[in-house]
Amino acid sequence: MKAVVFRNPETRVEVANVDLAAPKAGEVRVKIAAAGVCHSDLHVKRGEWDAAAPMVMGHEGSGVVLELGEGVTSLAVGDHVVLSWVPPCGECRYCLQGHEARCQKVATLVAPQGVLFDGTSRLSLGEEQIHHYLGVSSFAEEVVVPASGAIKVRDDAPLDVIAVVGCAVATGVGAVLNTAAVEPGATVAVIGCGGVGLNVVQGAKLAGAERIIAIDIVADKTAMALQFGATDRIDSSERDAVEQLFELIPDGVDYAFDAIGRTVTTEQAIQMLGLGGAAVIVGLPPTGARASFEPLVLAEADQRILGSNYGSVRPSIDIPALVDRYMDGQLKLDPLISGRRPLDEAAEALDDLEAGGVLRTLLIP
Amino acid sequence: MKAVVFRNPETRVEVANVDLAAPKAGEVRVKIAAAGVCHSDLHVKRGEWDAAAPMVMGHEGSGVVLELGEGVTSLAVGDHVVLSWVPPCGECRYCLQGHEARCQKVATLVAPQGVLFDGTSRLSLGEEQIHHYLGVSSFAEEVVVPASGAIKVRDDAPLDVIAVVGCAVATGVGAVLNTAAVEPGATVAVIGCGGVGLNVVQGAKLAGAERIIAIDIVADKTAMALQFGATDRIDSSERDAVEQLFELIPDGVDYAFDAIGRTVTTEQAIQMLGLGGAAVIVGLPPTGARASFEPLVLAEADQRILGSNYGSVRPSIDIPALVDRYMDGQLKLDPLISGRRPLDEAAEALDDLEAGGVLRTLLIP
Repeated sequence: MKAVVFRNPETRVEVANVDLAAPKAGEVRVKIAAAGVCHSDLHVKRGEWDAAAPMVMGHEGSGVVLELGEGVTSLAVGDHVVLSWVPPCGECRYCLQGHEARCQKVATLVAPQGVLFDGTSRLSLGEEQIHHYLGVSSFAEEVVVPASGAIKVRDDAPLDVIAVVGCAVATGVGAVLNTAAVEPGATVAVIGCGGVGLNVVQGAKLAGAERIIAIDIVADKTAMALQFGATDRIDSSERDAVEQLFELIPDGVDYAFDAIGRTVTTEQAIQMLGLGGAAVIVGLPPTGARASFEPLVLAEADQRILGSNYGSVRPSIDIPALVDRYMDGQLKLDPLISGRRPLDEAAEALDDLEAGGVLRTLLIP
Repeated sequence: MKAVVFRNPETRVEVANVDLAAPKAGEVRVKIAAAGVCHSDLHVKRGEWDAAAPMVMGHEGSGVVLELGEGVTSLAVGDHVVLSWVPPCGECRYCLQGHEARCQKVATLVAPQGVLFDGTSRLSLGEEQIHHYLGVSSFAEEVVVPASGAIKVRDDAPLDVIAVVGCAVATGVGAVLNTAAVEPGATVAVIGCGGVGLNVVQGAKLAGAERIIAIDIVADKTAMALQFGATDRIDSSERDAVEQLFELIPDGVDYAFDAIGRTVTTEQAIQMLGLGGAAVIVGLPPTGARASFEPLVLAEADQRILGSNYGSVRPSIDIPALVDRYMDGQLKLDPLISGRRPLDEAAEALDDLEAGGVLRTLLIP
């Protein structure tokens, strides 16, 4: 099958004919309908994150179940699914506590080693083993994934839209509803109004936040955030965002989301907090980057800094619910998709993302 | 009345004859039975924190109600009380949400300005106005405090012991039960086994933690922590505490409490965390000190950094409950009290604390 292979930051990604083995016990094979190109893919491509290579890229996607491995009863051939880049093992203490986004087997085996649960890969190129990326590898015509990573959703939802629920939407909305558990009436600042930031904005609206302040250096992005539910916007291109925030909300905010993931934006989020406030780290920086805070201020004001991995989602509960909310008109997904390209144009889609100005490009095999 | 006055870091604290005005509406006058000398007092004495001066020092204490201001119905003359250095206003949005330790009126008026709720002080020395410290000023024969800061407790509890519930115990145990909400079976590291750290240890035991690792550079302190419920101890005087922690708990801990409040201990607490872990800042550093973390690690591992102000306590609920737990034998208080001195020896008690090796000294007027 056709798939997009990444070898190292020096080599351009290429489309190759990759062999995909049949699903083993507990796995399923899925025909990909659409796969989103995400900033995480860009971090990998640039060599900013450790990732097992060579790999088939991609960790966001949707499709239709083609084949069931032994013992799979939760899915049927023909089911429409959204792929989850955390396929919960269901057995570790984190899964059993309902914190599936922390799944230990995913965090220690699947993600860092680029394999499935049995420690091997279903992907190869001749004699060469090819790694999975985050248990998904959706830049391909087909994938084999653990059954827990293929989340059944309703059949009437358009697959070439809801693909984005699997990462961008789950991450942004989940950070608001799960990680932070924003309450009705809260004040919320969102730094960065790209794909994840806009989902934080619409998550905050769903949560009933009273003020949602969208912050970006690009005016078009904060304008779009207003359509997603933001009540105010700050142009941080020329004047300090923190100073402007306190002009709008003199007591500081209850929640500040860093949807960018640079040292400066993480520290701004912390500085924007009022009493009892929480800064939530959603955007992800390169490995090794550090941010600092004043422990005395954090303690005296009873504040928190919350890391949010994949929006702290419980995939099998949250992903179908997010699809339902889209179908009910409570979540906007279409404006998040800035374009669709054939799988052959994956390299160009990554170039576009790097150049800026696009939200989500979906690759269509 | 006799009271201990702090003027500035260059001048030794002195016992003076201070005038105490009658309680105004909503306030009460309390005869002090005992007042604890805390590290926060030391921070003030050294000039490491901003504090309105001259002031009568002290923010931990117990006593008996002598006089009620107008409209006070929650207390009666003769009631035994433990003083709370957050006297909740009961009206701000934080109090109304049950987050009384974040009380906005305390955080913005009472604490920084050294006054009571009407913006004035009941303390004076001739013509000179003297400030309250954290709405308490317990290094004195008597205090006038807001009624919400005098917490009625049972009459059979010894006042010259339970004074420490008002700060050290509420802060340490509250950080475990309220701020972190440690679950049964959790793994907990405690950095620093002084007065607050020992209370974190016994709080973790109350919460049902499975492993409680006590960490200190002084072997006597970790030995004492074992008596308070620690299951393991680490001597961090010669070898890195983080390295030793991972030898004991290879996956890292669920909760790491920094009961010291130095940059190095705060960063160690963060580094000790496993998946989904929370670092809790209980010990307080000097103003301006900073600590850093890796946002990528915090986000990917779904971890949290939690500031804990006064153990996130709800004084009127938690303080009587802590006294009950002492009387029931579930909390140890007596070993926390290393000595008692007359009020006249406040300066010496502060010197002792600075020199190290003492836990809590109680001043007895």
